[in-house]
Amino acid sequence: MQTESIAPATPPGRIMLVGIGPGSTAHMTARAREAIAAADTIIGYVTYIKLVAELIEGKEVIRKSMTEELDRAVEALARAREGRKVALISSGDAGVYGMAGPTYEVLFQAGWTPASGIEVEIVPGASALNSCAARVGAPLTHDFCAISLSDLLTPWPVIARRLDAAAAADFVVALYNPKSGRRTRQIVEAQRLFLRHRDPETPVAIVKSAYRRRENIVLTTLAQMAEADIGMLSTVLIGNSNTFVREGLMVTPRGYANKYDLDEGGSARDGERAGRSLSTGLNGWLAGLQADLAAGSSLEALARLHRLPVDYLRETLAEPLEMALAGEAEEGGE
Amino acid sequence: MQTESIAPATPPGRIMLVGIGPGSTAHMTARAREAIAAADTIIGYVTYIKLVAELIEGKEVIRKSMTEELDRAVEALARAREGRKVALISSGDAGVYGMAGPTYEVLFQAGWTPASGIEVEIVPGASALNSCAARVGAPLTHDFCAISLSDLLTPWPVIARRLDAAAAADFVVALYNPKSGRRTRQIVEAQRLFLRHRDPETPVAIVKSAYRRRENIVLTTLAQMAEADIGMLSTVLIGNSNTFVREGLMVTPRGYANKYDLDEGGSARDGERAGRSLSTGLNGWLAGLQADLAAGSSLEALARLHRLPVDYLRETLAEPLEMALAGEAEEGGE
Repeated sequence: MQTESIAPATPPGRIMLVGIGPGSTAHMTARAREAIAAADTIIGYVTYIKLVAELIEGKEVIRKSMTEELDRAVEALARAREGRKVALISSGDAGVYGMAGPTYEVLFQAGWTPASGIEVEIVPGASALNSCAARVGAPLTHDFCAISLSDLLTPWPVIARRLDAAAAADFVVALYNPKSGRRTRQIVEAQRLFLRHRDPETPVAIVKSAYRRRENIVLTTLAQMAEADIGMLSTVLIGNSNTFVREGLMVTPRGYANKYDLDEGGSARDGERAGRSLSTGLNGWLAGLQADLAAGSSLEALARLHRLPVDYLRETLAEPLEMALAGEAEEGGE
Repeated sequence: MQTESIAPATPPGRIMLVGIGPGSTAHMTARAREAIAAADTIIGYVTYIKLVAELIEGKEVIRKSMTEELDRAVEALARAREGRKVALISSGDAGVYGMAGPTYEVLFQAGWTPASGIEVEIVPGASALNSCAARVGAPLTHDFCAISLSDLLTPWPVIARRLDAAAAADFVVALYNPKSGRRTRQIVEAQRLFLRHRDPETPVAIVKSAYRRRENIVLTTLAQMAEADIGMLSTVLIGNSNTFVREGLMVTPRGYANKYDLDEGGSARDGERAGRSLSTGLNGWLAGLQADLAAGSSLEALARLHRLPVDYLRETLAEPLEMALAGEAEEGGE
């Protein structure tokens, strides 16, 4: 009680949300180690606390169960108000399905502001999808989604719409929380939704505990994935239509260079494509659409062909077309 | 020439694909540092090489331009064949739009196999989306996509379909390669596609050079984002329908607990919802669908209501329903 009235004399506390990566200390960042070293209080899910056991000797350790996310944040705030330096441990990245969101929600509810004296730092790390991808090859070389199959806080139709959209738009997909002892049907539903759009032979990797002692990797297919051994510590990676497996490695090519003609028209539309720029990029595509319209195609037919909304085509065609300059020299990498 | 005939005497080379994270050494993993230290040859895009300058003194350094991705991989293979230990440097994660894919493609083309003597290791790191998210708050606490707006290797309609799908299914989205000097319209098209589904006030963060000297963060909205200063080193984060900005922080809540009733039926459908389980999870939702059907709703109307394909509803309702056990205790975190 008394400490509250003399608050200005208390040194300001600090909350550090630390993503430790996959769990082996080798894949932790220098900043994550420093943050844990600087903390006097460590809060986390018991499993994650075990992964950093060697770094936290002599510190106050508060172990929480998986469901006590908000509790962890409340506890962190209480300690920080006492002037303590708190490290909240997340596996992977603290911002990806991690403690960063719940912590800010608790802080805002308690009236915290960045100026209120308690500093908050998020220490990024390699998320499960990065670690799992590194162990199976190069599945994330093209656009991808992360979708959690946990329906505790998210209505199933929201999750199902995302699975359907990601499958239809040919994203590589990482499924988080794919299955648990009691929640076994969600992965079957995910498979069902994907099979409406993707080849049953689409490569799938199931990675359990990447870089940890009990790491287990299974390469399978979309048709078989629901039968595989999947648990709470698994991440499921589903390839896109170009992903292949070779020499036990799952690889997604960078682009669609070889595949586009097959996908977007094919031989039946050769005549219509004659006037098009060779480029399939935005400017070439727009020029092609204008040529198709001039040759008598309807906007509706072109929208169907390209599987895009007709009003989008109408809007973008209403803008003046600036022709692409050949040989843009700025691609690649992150 | 001669060395080829005495190949077995040459020690095996090694290719290490090193993700260095955002670029400051504090956010590099221990394994990334070790891999660079162990290498005798460093290959990478000039900008990334500069970020690790202090770690590579005395090593052979091969600087490549942004477009020479395949060249980098070819060079790495050539050196590894000479028995050298090569570190290929990527910013962020080597697997996310990085060098992992092109390298395996070049290796396979050259007849490489994991048994051929040249070892390949991918060292995961925090990707741009992890680093950028950490700097703006907690935008990735729910399902998200990464989409590159570069149309050099990917046809625009493929990119546009992904933008449309991600916007419609309410994913948080990270746009990679959003804009360059010559490629300025793609971000306008992305905005156009998003505005078909999302509130113009949807929070957007534009993060340039996270954790680097010239870091710059702008919080804006979907309506304004195309006017913002966006460049080759920027990542654009677009929130979902629940994402909010408070105290200069962009936060996505963990779930849809408070929003679902509004989204999925609302007051007009109160009568139809009377028979439903309180749970909006898969089992509760399926039980609700069955009650709605028993009360006379058509499958088509339910599919429209939940914005899901009617054949999906038909298929999943054909399976026996196992009722959810209350209080699953396994959610949260990665």
